[in-house]
Amino acid sequence: MNIDAKLTQLGLTLPQAPRPVGAYLPCVQSGNLLFLSGVLPFRNGKLLRTGRVGAEVSLEDAAQDAAQTALNALAIVEAQLGGFERLVRCVKLTGFVACAPDFYDQPKVLNGASELLFKLMGEAGRHARAAVGVSALPLNSPVEADFIFEVRR
Amino acid sequence: MNIDAKLTQLGLTLPQAPRPVGAYLPCVQSGNLLFLSGVLPFRNGKLLRTGRVGAEVSLEDAAQDAAQTALNALAIVEAQLGGFERLVRCVKLTGFVACAPDFYDQPKVLNGASELLFKLMGEAGRHARAAVGVSALPLNSPVEADFIFEVRR
Amino acid sequence: MNIDAKLTQLGLTLPQAPRPVGAYLPCVQSGNLLFLSGVLPFRNGKLLRTGRVGAEVSLEDAAQDAAQTALNALAIVEAQLGGFERLVRCVKLTGFVACAPDFYDQPKVLNGASELLFKLMGEAGRHARAAVGVSALPLNSPVEADFIFEVRR
Repeated sequence: MNIDAKLTQLGLTLPQAPRPVGAYLPCVQSGNLLFLSGVLPFRNGKLLRTGRVGAEVSLEDAAQDAAQTALNALAIVEAQLGGFERLVRCVKLTGFVACAPDFYDQPKVLNGASELLFKLMGEAGRHARAAVGVSALPLNSPVEADFIFEVRR
Repeated sequence: MNIDAKLTQLGLTLPQAPRPVGAYLPCVQSGNLLFLSGVLPFRNGKLLRTGRVGAEVSLEDAAQDAAQTALNALAIVEAQLGGFERLVRCVKLTGFVACAPDFYDQPKVLNGASELLFKLMGEAGRHARAAVGVSALPLNSPVEADFIFEVRR
Repeated sequence: MNIDAKLTQLGLTLPQAPRPVGAYLPCVQSGNLLFLSGVLPFRNGKLLRTGRVGAEVSLEDAAQDAAQTALNALAIVEAQLGGFERLVRCVKLTGFVACAPDFYDQPKVLNGASELLFKLMGEAGRHARAAVGVSALPLNSPVEADFIFEVRR
């Protein structure tokens, strides 16, 4: 997989990876697994939008938010590994969707992230996934994504 | 452990494992860990029921839902490994329970899954577990279960 | 790191680790990863308090709850490993905060846990983290924390 070429092809650029803030880290590697901190859909230092899916936020916009979390996750991976050469695959995505209590399409929201990972990484981007609807996320973000990647040591 | 024999003894049969749909997979193995996608209580292609525990769904029914997720998880494991010979143990179950805001018995719901795994796998079925109540799950399912198994390579 | 000395220095004592109850375990080790069951802020056998953050429970009190879950997690680790010699680091904390639907400061709640782990373990206590707001947790606890530690075999 050539993620950098695919990014260019899709007209996408990786954001600056977030710096460590406070007593936790953007990611921690243990063995061949890279556990990321929960990723919010920041772009240029701001959330793309706030609110709950199925209330203030549409499914389409939330799927864009999910795609942004995938981009941001790759930025964290690249910063940690110093490039993508040692990235093996995406293992797991647990996606939390802040939503109205009668919104049941969390998987369609997360498709925004899953499909972008597949476009950028091919088969290595296909992952196990769980989609969960919750009442509130940090900073009133509509989406938070929790990634595990496999890396070479 | 002889899961097939135990299934017969309990009058249970494993469902057909779900096929890969879209950009994610039913499970991904990394090292000796098998990460499953979130499992819903489907039986014969349909959710056993919909709604929130403590509202439209009783604790007893939700515990049945949880048990069904354990069966469905084992079906995924069997399909992935081509049988249970390489299955070592269940490591972790994170169970999400869609519930009324004043329902606090998420652990009792998940006992349906934990106890079935113990019946089928013995000590190897005992796992670490987290129980969480949420406002909404995919397809209005009352339960979603997130499993990690250990396998031999 | 010398966790025991740090505990004394901070005037803290580890609680008794919980015993296995029912069909699940306080923690399961697989390879070098130790997966804990969801930890509630029990002290002396009772939750420090009940209720939702941003409603009945203040941010400050919830941060104390989070700190208690970190202590309780270390008690589980110590009981499992027979001391802290084989503990390498904290890898991941997923913190679930039961909260009002308009509460968005889940990260500040979890800082209670993250900062205590850093005080007790130094750099080895810094972890990846996800903060999620939910509608209800077991026993009406304001906080539940899900830890992964790395250990030496």
